[in-house]
Amino acid sequence: MDIEGCLLPEFWIAVARDTGIKDLELTTRDVESYDELMRFRIETLRKHGIRMPDIQRILGGVEPLAGAVEFLRWLRERHPVILLSDSYYELLQPFLSALEHPTIFCHHLEVDGDGYVSDYLLRQTDAKRKSIRAMGDLQFGTIAIGDAFNDVPMLQEADHGILYRPSNKVLDAVTEFPVAWDYEQLQSHVTAAAEA
Amino acid sequence: MDIEGCLLPEFWIAVARDTGIKDLELTTRDVESYDELMRFRIETLRKHGIRMPDIQRILGGVEPLAGAVEFLRWLRERHPVILLSDSYYELLQPFLSALEHPTIFCHHLEVDGDGYVSDYLLRQTDAKRKSIRAMGDLQFGTIAIGDAFNDVPMLQEADHGILYRPSNKVLDAVTEFPVAWDYEQLQSHVTAAAEA
Repeated sequence: MDIEGCLLPEFWIAVARDTGIKDLELTTRDVESYDELMRFRIETLRKHGIRMPDIQRILGGVEPLAGAVEFLRWLRERHPVILLSDSYYELLQPFLSALEHPTIFCHHLEVDGDGYVSDYLLRQTDAKRKSIRAMGDLQFGTIAIGDAFNDVPMLQEADHGILYRPSNKVLDAVTEFPVAWDYEQLQSHVTAAAEA
Repeated sequence: MDIEGCLLPEFWIAVARDTGIKDLELTTRDVESYDELMRFRIETLRKHGIRMPDIQRILGGVEPLAGAVEFLRWLRERHPVILLSDSYYELLQPFLSALEHPTIFCHHLEVDGDGYVSDYLLRQTDAKRKSIRAMGDLQFGTIAIGDAFNDVPMLQEADHGILYRPSNKVLDAVTEFPVAWDYEQLQSHVTAAAEA
């Protein structure tokens, strides 16, 4: 299951709102190259004197989406769960306790001696899809849940893909998966997929 | 990390003690073929009228090893953790809440309409080693922790293997890994491996 947009609000938007730095609201919808976007974010944080402890303090004040903790608990009582995110352990750290320490596969940010983010270190490219494939190779049936374009490859790779609250743009472009608009619907879709 | 012997007591021994059925104390040390052993256990349970709800009630009264919950919490605060067991989801179910719903890779027991265990369904052979290899393929560094002969392949496959409270027999035969005798030592070994 994806994290940002599915269990937690979008991190960069949260930091942008808290700091009032509009530039941090840019996403891959605005800047096509992820590398360019991340380098711009890193530069913007440094320009405004925002260090990792500041980011973690801001995110520490952000709540999981309403019902997310209960949904994740429900899921973990029934299935082995891995959260697959293209975000970073350092940004997720403030949420681990609220999410009750789930198993997360994501990436690392590099932080320099002054506390500034200095680089991003992708564990591998196409990480979500490869993780689903690895679970399939381990002879697990797989259910993937995501909301955004970067989730589509893992939804396609899984035995069952489910879209959770996709944007209109995603909804228009991706028509092959069932869609859930709240956690109750998501529970129904997961139950149906697990019994299929 | 392995479960039985590392975080929880041995399940079959617990059932044997509670029911007084000596035959359930047999292990792969006594019966070389795992298949033969499991078929014998299944037959023994049926002969004594022990059904899955009875087993789960017995195991529901068994505590995790002293300090295990705290150790697992410590580990999950620092690393993505997957518990790798050659046991069965149905036997682990009574412990999930006490262990705070970790992600577990193991196998399934088949239960018939009368509630008796009727078969065991291995998800795959050599499951622990293959799981470690899959994590390596996903570009994770890996630390494997186990206590028994069936853990040795995963300890060998991992970047770092650690033996936890092995029997003398294991200790004599397997000399290539650091050994921890309590959770404090295990923390030190994990920390050293993660920093290596």
